[in-house]
Amino acid sequence: MDAKVNIQTYMQQVGERARAASRRLASIDSGTKNKALLAMAEEIEAQQASLLEANAIDLEAGKKNGLDDALLDRLALNPERVTGMAEGIRQIVALADPIGSVTDLSYRESGIQVGKMRVPLGVIGIIYESRPNVTADAAALCLKAGNAAILRGGSEAAHSNQAIAKCIQAGLKTAGLSVDCVQVIETTDREAVGLLITMPKYVDVIVPRGGKGLIKRVSAEATVPVIKHLHGVCHVYIDGKADIDKALAVAFNSKTQRYGTCNTMETLLVDSVIAETILPTLGKMYTDVGVELRGCEKTCKILVTAIPATEADWDEEYLAPILSIRIVDGIDAAIEHCHQHSSGHTESIVTDDYSRARRFLAEVDSSSVMVNTSTRFADGFEYGLGAEIGISTDKIHVRGPVGVEGLTSQKYIVLGDGHIRK
Amino acid sequence: MDAKVNIQTYMQQVGERARAASRRLASIDSGTKNKALLAMAEEIEAQQASLLEANAIDLEAGKKNGLDDALLDRLALNPERVTGMAEGIRQIVALADPIGSVTDLSYRESGIQVGKMRVPLGVIGIIYESRPNVTADAAALCLKAGNAAILRGGSEAAHSNQAIAKCIQAGLKTAGLSVDCVQVIETTDREAVGLLITMPKYVDVIVPRGGKGLIKRVSAEATVPVIKHLHGVCHVYIDGKADIDKALAVAFNSKTQRYGTCNTMETLLVDSVIAETILPTLGKMYTDVGVELRGCEKTCKILVTAIPATEADWDEEYLAPILSIRIVDGIDAAIEHCHQHSSGHTESIVTDDYSRARRFLAEVDSSSVMVNTSTRFADGFEYGLGAEIGISTDKIHVRGPVGVEGLTSQKYIVLGDGHIRK
Repeated sequence: MDAKVNIQTYMQQVGERARAASRRLASIDSGTKNKALLAMAEEIEAQQASLLEANAIDLEAGKKNGLDDALLDRLALNPERVTGMAEGIRQIVALADPIGSVTDLSYRESGIQVGKMRVPLGVIGIIYESRPNVTADAAALCLKAGNAAILRGGSEAAHSNQAIAKCIQAGLKTAGLSVDCVQVIETTDREAVGLLITMPKYVDVIVPRGGKGLIKRVSAEATVPVIKHLHGVCHVYIDGKADIDKALAVAFNSKTQRYGTCNTMETLLVDSVIAETILPTLGKMYTDVGVELRGCEKTCKILVTAIPATEADWDEEYLAPILSIRIVDGIDAAIEHCHQHSSGHTESIVTDDYSRARRFLAEVDSSSVMVNTSTRFADGFEYGLGAEIGISTDKIHVRGPVGVEGLTSQKYIVLGDGHIRK
Repeated sequence: MDAKVNIQTYMQQVGERARAASRRLASIDSGTKNKALLAMAEEIEAQQASLLEANAIDLEAGKKNGLDDALLDRLALNPERVTGMAEGIRQIVALADPIGSVTDLSYRESGIQVGKMRVPLGVIGIIYESRPNVTADAAALCLKAGNAAILRGGSEAAHSNQAIAKCIQAGLKTAGLSVDCVQVIETTDREAVGLLITMPKYVDVIVPRGGKGLIKRVSAEATVPVIKHLHGVCHVYIDGKADIDKALAVAFNSKTQRYGTCNTMETLLVDSVIAETILPTLGKMYTDVGVELRGCEKTCKILVTAIPATEADWDEEYLAPILSIRIVDGIDAAIEHCHQHSSGHTESIVTDDYSRARRFLAEVDSSSVMVNTSTRFADGFEYGLGAEIGISTDKIHVRGPVGVEGLTSQKYIVLGDGHIRK
């Protein structure tokens, strides 16, 4: 009971400090924010040895606790990764500061001027797992957008995260900013997450970064708005009027350029009129690199290497060298399949037909809709946003890769000269 | 138990139909949507007699159930209000169609073109009370933005809403659109609301319009994102460097032009250096029109007509001829008061000082921040948005008056020519 009271008090204090810091941050100039960010990057490089030391403690504990190799790899820091963190922050420095920009300022009939000013969201809570570099990325993105950040990393990375936090706070101090601008939660008590996502008075938005379990829990329990990235069941549809070479290139690259990413294609849809032309070549390309193929009935007739897909396959995010393939009767069936099974992340059509490209772009309801392009392009760097804090599969507030601007809001500003309403 | 199963089945069917309709609506051209809207407006005018008849049934029941005069007035239709509904729809026809507009389409280094396309949110659930005209307004705004709408009005307006629904559906049919584009829920069972706000599979966003009780319930229970308009505790701050005439005009108009609206000023903040100059005149203006004044200690010394304000007064939305007045020591104290007590709706500074105007605009964290302007201007028509579905005091997705564009989202579109990621 005492511990519970303590963690509630602690989280409330964290919230109060963040809210107060966010008030001041809202009107800090770009130069000061960038000074803090550059100082953070420098400090991270200067503290490489102590970061690796802290990380070694986490890695050892992780091994003892039986974390698998993939998780240990995500947890691990090395000199290149430390430099990468610093470089990531410097790239954020180079981005334009979105805060304070005023758009659409124009006179109304009444004589008042009305426009929109871009402003920080306020306080952002980030809940994440394993990768310690998120601590640096998230802090830098939030600060650039004028937000105070409350970061809650996974307990498996606690020592690494606290060591990175020290570098962040050193950077804030160098620029004369409050260390409350970025707070890394010190307790690994799970209760802290429950409190963080139910403090609308202190927290304006929650960004969960991690596995489905984390995101589902946060979505279900949060009373603070959540910007979430659930998962990616991405599709490529090879239309009957596709250029064969482009279709082979896009379909192969979308699956095989990397297997474990959310913008990797998981299901290939092929127009029935072109299936016998293209699938034998494409199927061989996949099997040559070890991709397991799961096909619909018609696909299995064309590709003897494919095993029959079950209904569950159409909703599966494999994140692995596995691909489901379905032959569909034209663009209507392809779009309908996407409506039923896509997670709303990224869909691409390969076609040389103008009208079908136009329809696919208009009708497919996903955060990224592409023509003749590999789904692997769906990320913040490729879109020119710079770093991203995630890819939103929500429709509210921000959709697709979330960069600095996604962490801001807009307010109306009205300029008058004693104007009153008649 | 049977009834419960039935209402669950009913709401699920409503949701499925709305989702299917929204898929088709997403690519319907502007002309067809406008044709439907114009036909709705005509039908509403043509059906005036039957609308008034249905409304009479609601009014009679309302009187029997002891609704107060204010509620009965909001519930009542008359020929002018019916014409007003039709006119409101015609104004929405005149607005530009936001759907499909592509912005920021530009080449990236890789050679792909990336842009953003404005798209409907999908299915919007509107939960509202008493005023039957919301049925027409909300349906028209949702349709213009390409969304399917599920409308759930108050039980006290059930007959009026169903009569309006018939006109809406006649309009949809005239344009060849599915009547599922706008569904008015037929049951008055409260359970329907609970189901509507927890169907993320079928509903993309909920807009509650009504009293605090409704909005708190919806916010607490919804698993679908909510665009909410909580309440308006709006402030005018008369700065020490204000022009006296402008200050009198803005402060008087902000309170007295209408008492019952959310953009009415509820608390007046006065810089201590100007309080003795301006308050006697301003106080008399208010008391002359019957506004009750509740002042801080210093205010009560200057204005003998003021009664002492309690702490609760600073957070009160009176919606009545009552005003709280507080004397503050300059702009810092004024901004701090707003941070503590504003509901984030609308704040205005009266000043002729450039730097203070600039600071107020940057630092006050509300959906509308004004200089030398009456808070009463904070609405969709005055801002040039056309009709509004509410005024969002949230920071997420849309802030301030919510018009057609607030009911849309954006997706990324990517155009390539066989581009693959290296």
